Amino acid sequence: MKTMSNQSNQLRQQLQSAIDNKTKPPGSLGLLEEIAIRAGLVQQSLRPEIRDPQIVVFAGDHGIAKTGLVNPFPQEVTAQMVLNFIRGGAAINVFTRMHNIGLTVVDAGVNNEEWDSSISLDHFINAKIRPGTANYLETDAMTETNAVAAIETGRSIVSQLALQGCNTIGFGEMGIGNTSSAALIMSAITGLSIENCVGRGTGVNDQQMAVKTATLKKAYELHRLASLGNDPIKLLSKIGGFEIAMMTGAYLAAAEHHMLIVVDGFISTAALLLANLMEPAVKDNCIFAHTSNEQAHAAMLVHLEAKPLLHLGLRLGEGTGAALAIPIIRSAVAFLNEMASFDTAGVSNSTESDKTRPIP
Amino acid sequence: MKTMSNQSNQLRQQLQSAIDNKTKPPGSLGLLEEIAIRAGLVQQSLRPEIRDPQIVVFAGDHGIAKTGLVNPFPQEVTAQMVLNFIRGGAAINVFTRMHNIGLTVVDAGVNNEEWDSSISLDHFINAKIRPGTANYLETDAMTETNAVAAIETGRSIVSQLALQGCNTIGFGEMGIGNTSSAALIMSAITGLSIENCVGRGTGVNDQQMAVKTATLKKAYELHRLASLGNDPIKLLSKIGGFEIAMMTGAYLAAAEHHMLIVVDGFISTAALLLANLMEPAVKDNCIFAHTSNEQAHAAMLVHLEAKPLLHLGLRLGEGTGAALAIPIIRSAVAFLNEMASFDTAGVSNSTESDKTRPIP
Repeated sequence: MKTMSNQSNQLRQQLQSAIDNKTKPPGSLGLLEEIAIRAGLVQQSLRPEIRDPQIVVFAGDHGIAKTGLVNPFPQEVTAQMVLNFIRGGAAINVFTRMHNIGLTVVDAGVNNEEWDSSISLDHFINAKIRPGTANYLETDAMTETNAVAAIETGRSIVSQLALQGCNTIGFGEMGIGNTSSAALIMSAITGLSIENCVGRGTGVNDQQMAVKTATLKKAYELHRLASLGNDPIKLLSKIGGFEIAMMTGAYLAAAEHHMLIVVDGFISTAALLLANLMEPAVKDNCIFAHTSNEQAHAAMLVHLEAKPLLHLGLRLGEGTGAALAIPIIRSAVAFLNEMASFDTAGVSNSTESDKTRPIP
Repeated sequence: MKTMSNQSNQLRQQLQSAIDNKTKPPGSLGLLEEIAIRAGLVQQSLRPEIRDPQIVVFAGDHGIAKTGLVNPFPQEVTAQMVLNFIRGGAAINVFTRMHNIGLTVVDAGVNNEEWDSSISLDHFINAKIRPGTANYLETDAMTETNAVAAIETGRSIVSQLALQGCNTIGFGEMGIGNTSSAALIMSAITGLSIENCVGRGTGVNDQQMAVKTATLKKAYELHRLASLGNDPIKLLSKIGGFEIAMMTGAYLAAAEHHMLIVVDGFISTAALLLANLMEPAVKDNCIFAHTSNEQAHAAMLVHLEAKPLLHLGLRLGEGTGAALAIPIIRSAVAFLNEMASFDTAGVSNSTESDKTRPIP
């Protein structure tokens, strides 16, 4: 990790001091105080602001999903859900509309025919690398060239949003089978066993869970993932996910553009693990939205030393946790900018009273 | 607790079925699904709505605070903070402004001179019962007549808001010394020891904490609180809190008017314990906003079998946790009303796919 510069250290102290002078007992806004400091450090400002927050949802298909070994929903659901995003009927549409958050949907590699030319979402981007990855039980999910191309595409989409004025961003995903890729990435990078990284995804039952675990162990051995924990490009090419590769590039660009990053659930956090390998400073820009109900997410967050804001038992993806955390983040930045201080409000501080009254 | 009627049971099933048909894996919106069902049951509707949400902050002083035995901030801070609420500089002002929540501030019993006639908050209500309670180390905090009057005032304030169209409400408080009243109420009602009910309030240190605990044990014995765990009026008159008494009435009125109640932190929840003694059905209307960092709040929530939404380490009161939870509650109701169903969106459900494909 980047060592904090003296300048940042000084800014942190100034932010802490501004917070301690607000009309409230010290520390009484808990994690909101940490968010305010994080926002100030990322924006290098004593008065940070949340400007034009955006969620970008990357969708991609996984060859493994065709086998039915890891997923209760059929592969077609990925394309169907992208259409649902475009028509505004999914949970992420509801939450972004409600909280005035921009939404961009990206086809990173959905396995469908041409998109109907009549579909009309201003913010739909067809950036399909290929129509789904190959089945990694048989071969590599994608070429390394494809992996690099996907990372660069993700980077470019986010750079564009930054240039348009967005300074706060979260990444969601859709892809039947992608909890499996995420579990393999997690296992390779953290060294935790497959059993500790696998989860129920969209809802496999006990029997399906045993099959999913055995399948992922096979893929782990086949691609010798144990030796690839420091090689994000190789990991992506072996067990893939075009949407995961694009998110990896998206994180890198967000950090380059000094954006505040709102990290969503299990698959989004797996992409952050990859981005973090390439540039450990990315984590300094991150606020962790929530602990997902996908059982391995909590361990992933521990690995990242993250303090997630919400514990709502979500396991939907799409960026829904990030969207729900943005009102909390806005609140944190607002208290820093808008609350009165003890001096201006004429409120007595406990420190002052300690000076005049003995502790009983 | 009230037995759920057949009608409510049927409505619950209809709500669950509507949620299960939304384009998402079953259960994947976690606690938001429970909130949506709660809102539907409270409003007896398949399409509940959050209308004109309000926070009411009740402020009152405590005679014990003059002794300095339980509080690091001096008593004057209560009145100073009420002025801060009126001028818009406190955390609850920032959060309610940000999230379009109405705010009413009530003087339930602040120990100050007349309020300056130039103060101008549309929603400031001077309902002072008396200028602070008496010191309960020496005598009863208030008369039973005063306790009943305060409950009726709280009830009337909330009824007024309900008649004006508000259907979702949270209660906050301000009162130097009021974590002590709340701890005594909690201990009397739950049977937990004072040690398990006391906390650091606005921030007492270890030495002050020992003094606070010993002081509360003395009050507990003096007023024989162990025998008053079923008598809310007597509890209020003994160890009081005009703001706590008004909140008690406020909860009762909110339930009578079929409002959704957003429960804030330690002191607000203590008032709910009292309201619940008077009418156990009140709890059916409650959504628990957060677990406060006041250490005994978690045990209080366990006693109420509550599943709080947020775990942000807040310990400020004022209704801040409730205000921060309202965007989450709005999101829950919105997904129920606005998300597409599998049928309308043309998305394949896992149940359907199970019919056509064998589980591998």
